[in-house]
Amino acid sequence: MHILIIGAAGMVGRKLTERLAKDGALAGKKITKATLHDVIEPTAPAGAPFAVTTLASDFSAPGEAEKLVAGKPDFIFHLAAIVSGEAEQDFDKGYRINLTGSWNLFEAIRQLNMQSGGAYKPRVVFTSSIAVFGAPFPDKIYDEFATTPLTSYGTQKAVGELLLADYTRKGFFDGVGIRLPTICVRPGKPNKAASGFFSNIIREPLAGQEAVLPVSEDVRHWHASPRSAVGFLIHAAEIDGDKVGPRRNLSMPGLSCTVGEQIEALRRVAGDAVVARIKREPDPAIIKIVSGWARDLDPSRALALGFKAETSFDEIIRVHIEDELGGKIA
Amino acid sequence: MHILIIGAAGMVGRKLTERLAKDGALAGKKITKATLHDVIEPTAPAGAPFAVTTLASDFSAPGEAEKLVAGKPDFIFHLAAIVSGEAEQDFDKGYRINLTGSWNLFEAIRQLNMQSGGAYKPRVVFTSSIAVFGAPFPDKIYDEFATTPLTSYGTQKAVGELLLADYTRKGFFDGVGIRLPTICVRPGKPNKAASGFFSNIIREPLAGQEAVLPVSEDVRHWHASPRSAVGFLIHAAEIDGDKVGPRRNLSMPGLSCTVGEQIEALRRVAGDAVVARIKREPDPAIIKIVSGWARDLDPSRALALGFKAETSFDEIIRVHIEDELGGKIA
Repeated sequence: MHILIIGAAGMVGRKLTERLAKDGALAGKKITKATLHDVIEPTAPAGAPFAVTTLASDFSAPGEAEKLVAGKPDFIFHLAAIVSGEAEQDFDKGYRINLTGSWNLFEAIRQLNMQSGGAYKPRVVFTSSIAVFGAPFPDKIYDEFATTPLTSYGTQKAVGELLLADYTRKGFFDGVGIRLPTICVRPGKPNKAASGFFSNIIREPLAGQEAVLPVSEDVRHWHASPRSAVGFLIHAAEIDGDKVGPRRNLSMPGLSCTVGEQIEALRRVAGDAVVARIKREPDPAIIKIVSGWARDLDPSRALALGFKAETSFDEIIRVHIEDELGGKIA
Repeated sequence: MHILIIGAAGMVGRKLTERLAKDGALAGKKITKATLHDVIEPTAPAGAPFAVTTLASDFSAPGEAEKLVAGKPDFIFHLAAIVSGEAEQDFDKGYRINLTGSWNLFEAIRQLNMQSGGAYKPRVVFTSSIAVFGAPFPDKIYDEFATTPLTSYGTQKAVGELLLADYTRKGFFDGVGIRLPTICVRPGKPNKAASGFFSNIIREPLAGQEAVLPVSEDVRHWHASPRSAVGFLIHAAEIDGDKVGPRRNLSMPGLSCTVGEQIEALRRVAGDAVVARIKREPDPAIIKIVSGWARDLDPSRALALGFKAETSFDEIIRVHIEDELGGKIA
């Protein structure tokens, strides 16, 4: 059984690859081959019990999607994207990768499906985002709330969702789109993403470093751990499509909490000395951006379909300490 | 002041052209030039007080959209579309015209906008459809209800809406998308569209002909007259974009009524002898299709913004008799 991961070099892509290498199976079937693709060549996971091919290319370039799916992978994880900030700054690049790229991929699969008389019909898991929603929001964004994005990234993801649902309805493939919460705690270095502080204020103090908090403690946001994100992807690959029904795009579960609640969880898990490493430096630009973001969701459909996330921020911090710090706090 | 109408040969396009020829002005400015485009050459309206150019081409072909907007029209009405049934049967053609065609048009305008340093920023009125919604529905489809279409046509319109909103947000043009109700009473011959009977059962009896009713009288649907559709387009061209805000796509007002209520209105307006020309011939295929359609909407935003439609089916019938039958019933 053959798996293709597009966007395999990103943080979630790497963690998904490692999980599949550890499990050796997906949806009850043994994995015999994995193709890992990204714009930079992904690293093959150590000790995978299956053959691994790594490839680097621009998947939105003409003919690239066709090459990627030519081997008829049984499962396709489509994680490739230009992130929100870059898609906003570089309009052409964002649309080319996030919209044309995704559409080319869906089209390449459709062509194989038609050539095979419908026999080739892979499960396609598409990572969407809560950025498909745009303020003003209800207190909790419910499953039937309209997608009125306020960024080009959110627009491109919302279009991808519509295409995924229509290609699935027509039987060209079997798609499931998952709207990821903000992933927290992101491992690695602090980055300049406007959302970076949600992770920075946990990761850096736990590693003995100072971190800057640019917003007030009453800012509320929607989080899930990298481990949960991988769990969503696996569950989206394994779930019965008939149970999902025609509405193929699902808001994933997550945890709604304020920055103040994040800090109190850090205090409970790691103590006052760690919390003292958070420096408050309000940044009007970030305050403005974050004020337009989703604060809370009601992901009833995903919960009913068996998707699971953390239920406390303490748990999100513990996942980070276990998965990234070998269980140790600096 | 220059107006471009794409899809000008269709029923609504023709009526819009006639209305503009009669008014001679739009948004308080005198019209000096109109370019009428469609896949077949549109007819220039009689006695228009402005220059009229008629053009025929496939607007989705490479380079065509650029040619259409090269004259920098101040108002662009984008009415071109492959209709629902054909888009469902011919997947490639539907996506090519309804999605690629619309995107090409938006891109061509963006290029002119950028070349002019932002000075060229036309109002773009895009005709969308209640087909962006897919069952199951709430009792009334409210403005924040998600677009989860169950047809390729609805998908293509929903994508067009997202692009329109994002290109507008980025300042490339000033777009307003309007979701038209089913247009009733459609003039002309009975056609094979699944929705045709809503008009056929009024138009044909009024013209002395028999008409077939393929569904039961309790089927409820959402209607507006051709005259209202033209009114929506004019108002969408004239409305203050700031009042619309970032959510640029609006469900238009309409009238929700059952087929039974349509028939009773026909009886009030035209009498028993006219109603007796309706023959009941249930068609399971049409019954199934129609069961997935929108029955009622709550178009609060559009109403607050001043869009107006008929408030009784009697009025819709009278509009047809006035506009199409010269006030006379057969």
